[in-house]
Amino acid sequence: MSGHIIAVDAMGGDNAPDCVFAGAALALQRHPGIQFLFYGDDVRIAPLLAKYPALASVSKICPTAMVIPADMKPSVALRQGRQSSMALAIDAVARGEAACVVSSGNTGALMALAMIILKRLPGIDRPAIASFFPTQRGESVMLDLGANAACDASNLVQFSVMGAAFSSAVLGLTNPTVGLLNLGTEDSKGRDEIKEADGLLRNLPTLPGQYKGFIEGNDIPAGTVDVVVTDGFTGNVALKTAEGTSKLYSHFLRQALQSSFVAKIGYLLARRAFDSLKIRVDPRRYNGAMFLGLQGVCVKSHGGSDAVGFANAIGVAVDLVQNRFNDTLRDRISATSSVSADS
Amino acid sequence: MSGHIIAVDAMGGDNAPDCVFAGAALALQRHPGIQFLFYGDDVRIAPLLAKYPALASVSKICPTAMVIPADMKPSVALRQGRQSSMALAIDAVARGEAACVVSSGNTGALMALAMIILKRLPGIDRPAIASFFPTQRGESVMLDLGANAACDASNLVQFSVMGAAFSSAVLGLTNPTVGLLNLGTEDSKGRDEIKEADGLLRNLPTLPGQYKGFIEGNDIPAGTVDVVVTDGFTGNVALKTAEGTSKLYSHFLRQALQSSFVAKIGYLLARRAFDSLKIRVDPRRYNGAMFLGLQGVCVKSHGGSDAVGFANAIGVAVDLVQNRFNDTLRDRISATSSVSADS
Repeated sequence: MSGHIIAVDAMGGDNAPDCVFAGAALALQRHPGIQFLFYGDDVRIAPLLAKYPALASVSKICPTAMVIPADMKPSVALRQGRQSSMALAIDAVARGEAACVVSSGNTGALMALAMIILKRLPGIDRPAIASFFPTQRGESVMLDLGANAACDASNLVQFSVMGAAFSSAVLGLTNPTVGLLNLGTEDSKGRDEIKEADGLLRNLPTLPGQYKGFIEGNDIPAGTVDVVVTDGFTGNVALKTAEGTSKLYSHFLRQALQSSFVAKIGYLLARRAFDSLKIRVDPRRYNGAMFLGLQGVCVKSHGGSDAVGFANAIGVAVDLVQNRFNDTLRDRISATSSVSADS
Repeated sequence: MSGHIIAVDAMGGDNAPDCVFAGAALALQRHPGIQFLFYGDDVRIAPLLAKYPALASVSKICPTAMVIPADMKPSVALRQGRQSSMALAIDAVARGEAACVVSSGNTGALMALAMIILKRLPGIDRPAIASFFPTQRGESVMLDLGANAACDASNLVQFSVMGAAFSSAVLGLTNPTVGLLNLGTEDSKGRDEIKEADGLLRNLPTLPGQYKGFIEGNDIPAGTVDVVVTDGFTGNVALKTAEGTSKLYSHFLRQALQSSFVAKIGYLLARRAFDSLKIRVDPRRYNGAMFLGLQGVCVKSHGGSDAVGFANAIGVAVDLVQNRFNDTLRDRISATSSVSADS
């Protein structure tokens, strides 16, 4: 087989397995040359794959009998889920049969299994979940989005290095700027671990001139920095709050435009503008969260994503593989660790 | 003097003292009968007050020589700021000369001075900052918004009781629902203190049937619950992220509507609808954060608020005074504490 091989957990997510194949077919159009290994119940997925002849010609089904349920605890998934579609898809990356794995399944289980099967990169204490989002200046990256409810200063420093490398690989930025999320920009504010991380980052030679200090919540959508670093609890809340606020604004806009006959006419005339706005804030565009800090590329697609969202998640994985992202990350982390060890 | 007397720190905030008087004049139109004590530099503020004869006729200037700077640390404000316009306005409430105090000044200093001068309500370990915000279902309350960067389970339980009382007083809800912000709705997720608070709240007779368990970031703008409870770090980030996202959406909308001639015509026709939308998401509407848990009503206006925003902050203070909010809160806290002591 030539080209990159993507291992896909075909059974994870609310709309699996149907949307998985529609999404993969779309991704194949965008990235000709990629190939797929689909892990799942072959009785269910074989007819779905057959609907897409071009996709079927570059794919192989790997039959699995078990699916990790959406509400299974990570610890249970580790004990009982090693023969699941999710775990076996990750195994393919660990064995070098696939270049990356994509799943819409249970996030906690995926992270736990990926940590055990792929192992962490040397120098990384805690892997993090990173994703990008729209800003006034373009797109930015935020991490951690939920892998670690609490973090210490050295976790936050590692997230900064990983986030900057991710931003370079996916968004193509040469020297992305990094900010540490806090409840104020004054030095005296915030939690102890954040103040400590701020001190470490100011003197970190791995991010020369890139660290911009504390930022606040409003800086996330403003795009003040290219990489927003925070613990998984705060990042998760911030990302979901932004998604919800965007929905609220759409809701208010719809109500306003239906409030009078003249407003409705105005809406009809400006319809294409509204459609372009919808596309711009469409969360599917930003689907595909990367598990950073593992010895392998593992991308999580949103559990509720449809075919378009799933295709975008595959696109993120392909970008990371093509850019040899994990090699770059390994070098940067190694440079950061040796500095820390020296100091 | 008849009616409620408002003590105003006339020197705090980016647009003080000018917008303070324009705002107070507007508040007086909305709440006839209220009176004012203005604390500040009388040479500067006397001519400003003279511009509003109706306001001047129900106001008194209390000359003060010192102003707390926006960047002064709370600990320094406590040592050096006791003769400031801010501290002396709070003193007026402590002495019973005013019913409440309103300031646009340094939040940390205001909280520190108010805690020392007004003292906490019995049974409250940590006062919290609460404010309301627009949702798909109307308006909700969130706390803490930044007074406490880290909180334990009992702080979060007290915030829940205070937030529910605040929602009843300002929004008129009889049995407001309460949710605890987390990074997932499953019992197994989140930080230890949040899981512990969840257990305590499920059995709290002071909030019968009102506690709805964990909520996520997207539930804040969705209006899933009437009262969102979280620590001050997360609340601060979530509120500012929502404000920033609203601005981002407006920015995208503006760009979309200027993208073509037809879109511009559509915009002109739907202009009144857009104006109504602007009013609906106007952060000035939601200005006025209450410091809950003190023996006195202390309302913080946004540092950058203009006259309209300041008038709204005064309106929040008037609502709380007229509803005898602190008496109700004292009773509820006392009921909660006795339950906790019994158990």
